[in-house]
Amino acid sequence: VGVGVDQELISSVPSSNATFVTRNFTALEIAYCRAQPSPASSFAARWAGKEAVFKSLGVQSKGAAAAMSDIEILSDENGAPVVNLHGDAKTAADSKGVSKVLISLSHSETVAIAFAQATSS
Amino acid sequence: VGVGVDQELISSVPSSNATFVTRNFTALEIAYCRAQPSPASSFAARWAGKEAVFKSLGVQSKGAAAAMSDIEILSDENGAPVVNLHGDAKTAADSKGVSKVLISLSHSETVAIAFAQATSS
Amino acid sequence: VGVGVDQELISSVPSSNATFVTRNFTALEIAYCRAQPSPASSFAARWAGKEAVFKSLGVQSKGAAAAMSDIEILSDENGAPVVNLHGDAKTAADSKGVSKVLISLSHSETVAIAFAQATSS
Repeated sequence: VGVGVDQELISSVPSSNATFVTRNFTALEIAYCRAQPSPASSFAARWAGKEAVFKSLGVQSKGAAAAMSDIEILSDENGAPVVNLHGDAKTAADSKGVSKVLISLSHSETVAIAFAQATSS
Repeated sequence: VGVGVDQELISSVPSSNATFVTRNFTALEIAYCRAQPSPASSFAARWAGKEAVFKSLGVQSKGAAAAMSDIEILSDENGAPVVNLHGDAKTAADSKGVSKVLISLSHSETVAIAFAQATSS
Repeated sequence: VGVGVDQELISSVPSSNATFVTRNFTALEIAYCRAQPSPASSFAARWAGKEAVFKSLGVQSKGAAAAMSDIEILSDENGAPVVNLHGDAKTAADSKGVSKVLISLSHSETVAIAFAQATSS
């Protein structure tokens, strides 16, 4: 149905700003990222992931003003990231016949990248 | 059928060279990129996109000598990029049973990346 | 079934370390990379590719300790990369119903990125 790619400079994602974090990440995401060796990298990777999922749905990213917390990226039992959609994001996916969004994340010391694929089967 | 990824340093794409631009971009692409906040970034992202589409078709990229203008990347009503194939690129896609190529683009201050997926259904 | 993305700083992949190379790359991969204009870039791109394939299979990457040579990335007659799975990687793919993994690689002067898509049809 659609694909999405995004990259973010880790230093450009304000993960130490509590307002930014609580507006854009769910409680489970915040708990996960804070438990990682580099929380800033984990927040940036998930932020890139949220943008990539938005792009894969073919709707325009509304940036920081959108309910990015409606796109939740958690980890399965193998540590692989999984996407859960809520609210407007879920509505947009349903209207396009998207049943699942696959995601992968990667970060270096400075840059986080993400790839998302919206599938319909 | 195939996937393609490409990255380009924005500074390495000679988007202020009129010969390079008119050889490799269509009139609609040029009009779009020149209307963006950072034309150089937009040209670089589309250049990466053209390379990624080439890779997704499983044919060897012929670089600057190829008719890269045969791979046209425009924007739909939501601002999402869409691929139109012409000429040799269309022929290559048809011969592989590729009916549509999905694309996503992203750029930071310095680097543009693109991902393409050739699909057959 | 799954997607995977990875990026590696070319300078961080110890491609001049014979132990690292022979543990993680097959004889065909080594021959290919050493014949390229920049062997370090080619080794780094394939290393990123192996990580991306691991992620696309939804199993946890075991890093340098895993049999990364079980994921072999060669080139077809057009120069496009193709994935061959052996050993544990083949077993993991079979158990998930993965029949083919598509891959694309890209590198700049400093960074290699890879994208993999595991498919079931």
